[in-house]
Amino acid sequence: MTAATPVTEGIVRKEAPKHAELEGFGVRDNCLTVGGVPVTRLADRVGQTPFFAYDRRLMTARVESLRKALPKDVHLHYAMKANPMPAVVQHMARIVDGLDVASAGEMQVALDTGIDPLTISFAGPGKTPQELSCAVAAGIVINMESPYEMEVIARIAEKQGLRPHVAIRVNPDFELKTSGMKMGGGPKQFGVDAEQVPAMLKRLGELDLAFHGFHIFSGSQNLREEALEEAQEKTINLAIELARHAPTPPRMVNIGGGFGIPYFPGDKRLDIERVGANLERLMPRARQELEGAEIVVELGRYLVGEAGVYVARVVDRKESRGQVFLITDGGLHHQLSASGNFGQVIRKNYPVAIANKMDLPAVEEANIVGCLCTPLDRLGDKVPLPRGEVGDLVVVFQSGAYGRSSSPTAFLGHPEPAEILV
Amino acid sequence: MTAATPVTEGIVRKEAPKHAELEGFGVRDNCLTVGGVPVTRLADRVGQTPFFAYDRRLMTARVESLRKALPKDVHLHYAMKANPMPAVVQHMARIVDGLDVASAGEMQVALDTGIDPLTISFAGPGKTPQELSCAVAAGIVINMESPYEMEVIARIAEKQGLRPHVAIRVNPDFELKTSGMKMGGGPKQFGVDAEQVPAMLKRLGELDLAFHGFHIFSGSQNLREEALEEAQEKTINLAIELARHAPTPPRMVNIGGGFGIPYFPGDKRLDIERVGANLERLMPRARQELEGAEIVVELGRYLVGEAGVYVARVVDRKESRGQVFLITDGGLHHQLSASGNFGQVIRKNYPVAIANKMDLPAVEEANIVGCLCTPLDRLGDKVPLPRGEVGDLVVVFQSGAYGRSSSPTAFLGHPEPAEILV
Repeated sequence: MTAATPVTEGIVRKEAPKHAELEGFGVRDNCLTVGGVPVTRLADRVGQTPFFAYDRRLMTARVESLRKALPKDVHLHYAMKANPMPAVVQHMARIVDGLDVASAGEMQVALDTGIDPLTISFAGPGKTPQELSCAVAAGIVINMESPYEMEVIARIAEKQGLRPHVAIRVNPDFELKTSGMKMGGGPKQFGVDAEQVPAMLKRLGELDLAFHGFHIFSGSQNLREEALEEAQEKTINLAIELARHAPTPPRMVNIGGGFGIPYFPGDKRLDIERVGANLERLMPRARQELEGAEIVVELGRYLVGEAGVYVARVVDRKESRGQVFLITDGGLHHQLSASGNFGQVIRKNYPVAIANKMDLPAVEEANIVGCLCTPLDRLGDKVPLPRGEVGDLVVVFQSGAYGRSSSPTAFLGHPEPAEILV
Repeated sequence: MTAATPVTEGIVRKEAPKHAELEGFGVRDNCLTVGGVPVTRLADRVGQTPFFAYDRRLMTARVESLRKALPKDVHLHYAMKANPMPAVVQHMARIVDGLDVASAGEMQVALDTGIDPLTISFAGPGKTPQELSCAVAAGIVINMESPYEMEVIARIAEKQGLRPHVAIRVNPDFELKTSGMKMGGGPKQFGVDAEQVPAMLKRLGELDLAFHGFHIFSGSQNLREEALEEAQEKTINLAIELARHAPTPPRMVNIGGGFGIPYFPGDKRLDIERVGANLERLMPRARQELEGAEIVVELGRYLVGEAGVYVARVVDRKESRGQVFLITDGGLHHQLSASGNFGQVIRKNYPVAIANKMDLPAVEEANIVGCLCTPLDRLGDKVPLPRGEVGDLVVVFQSGAYGRSSSPTAFLGHPEPAEILV
């Protein structure tokens, strides 16, 4: 199935880049299915639009394909900031080896899954004393972002009579090239500059803290295998180098992730076998030089991003000066990234479709917009589609990550979107 | 007081554009005050950071200065989407002539103020049947966005046994030039193309609806007087032209607003006297040709945007490869626009300061960032500031509009910001 459905000659230029093939969702009786259930039926089940629907089988399939591609002894963590819906986190906790949280709020959801606290790690540049106190009491691993934070943790630990497991988040001396978001290299608010880490490790040895390892994260949403391969190699080399300064051998080295998913026309799906093979090549040295350390790959978007859709209903159809507008009850207040307003410089379309007209050919180009009183509220610009009518269900694909939780749901006072895991 | 405090020679290039002078907030004993109360004391009163603090006296002063500048018989409406905090809406309802709402949720807050429902108008391109039903029952004015919506309203009205007041939102055949956001001109999801309005008015006359007038809105956040003047003239001319086709004379013509406020270095404050004088010049014709119609100016951001600050506490100070980072407990999840990620193409700094060090000279350039694990989370890039330390309170000015309500507060699971009206 392709999101850009075949179009009649002349409506779309033939050379226009296309969205990558979407995998996993089925079509039955002209209707898109999620978890095997038609989206029209899901809308009835939810009792409202708009909503997000996530497919647990696709999440499981993604984890399984990753396990096959990655070296057997690499641990897989889920960064729950990508999709913090409690049911999703519960599901992921059963199929991955650990969870990564970005706040005390996320930590509570992670702890509710019942997984071993030592497989939960907490990273974030501005942890408050209150949050650190929660984390110490919970017994999770704290990825420390600065020497100052380490001192705060040591004081809290003394007060609570606990010896917390701490890792150092390293701002590497390289960056993940051509990454959607650079998280390392150069001056950064994240982690401790690599060159400052030896001194911090020395001080760590003087404190009553259990050294757990390193978190080295150089970027995210990358679709270029060679950039990921280069970053993986540099990351492992840096961990080996830094481990020489550690008070005790690291028990964990989190090498980040950064695996991207295709969002826009022209984006090519990542060759995960190739990335896995590269890691396999690096592992013998890692096993030897970082003996006893778990090598962790941390992924958020890559695990859940393609497993979800956003569904909104068409509430008006308008033709304005030669253009068709399908006006939905959804919008950027639920799916900010798809509107092109969250960090993107140039707006491009996410893959979209009319869920209840999947087998119909495209006959027109339509703009899909939301219900907000702002011109920013666009979900699709000039998309080739079957004729859309009031009552139709528009789906935005690639909405399983950074959808609801990263959108301004209170904007203009509209109802919150529902979320279901099917 | 300037947000860009004087800096020592060499730190900032002399030719760099500056933020406009900020008006209204005072400084006492080295500390910024809001509503006459030091921000440090407000932080204690709120009991948490981050928070938004709005100054009711500044809102009142802004309305008074507008009343002075605008023709006496022009009505002033508050578009509550700019800041929907209930206490703010209650305050504004007492000092303006009407409220504009963008959803049924906002409508409920507006009705709670007790103002006459016929001074509340509801615009929005994707109103659901459910929302329209609420609006009809409430007896407010509905700004209709399409012929289809009009038919839905007529059916609801018949069912409820009511005769709702309806206005037509017009997509004009011109746009507000150099506007921050274009809301009219060309093909748009908003309103009814001007050239389609006569036919819609004819149909309106056949339905059991009370014709209320027109809503003609061409753009927002404009700082160029000549562009606003041109749009005002064209808007009034268009209303006069369209009124000729109306079944009954319009009782209201909402000419929009679009008055901008200075956010970025180099932005010049709007000359409101000049804009008011232009409207005075246009009013004699409007009074004659649109006799009996209230001319309404609808403003959101302009009324409240400069009356609020966002306050976050520094929780870490970090030096990374030659740059200073002040890491706060706030961020883009509360103040998305200030981070440069909401519709902006190029990130520029909002005016910022350290609230408890207002009288100290700038001695360094610092990056002010939030607590989120994303490089998008920046509140200030290389801002000349006094030396910032853990515990200091950072303020982001111009945060009275489109702050909390247009930000993804659930992102990464951090606590919601508080809001106070002082």
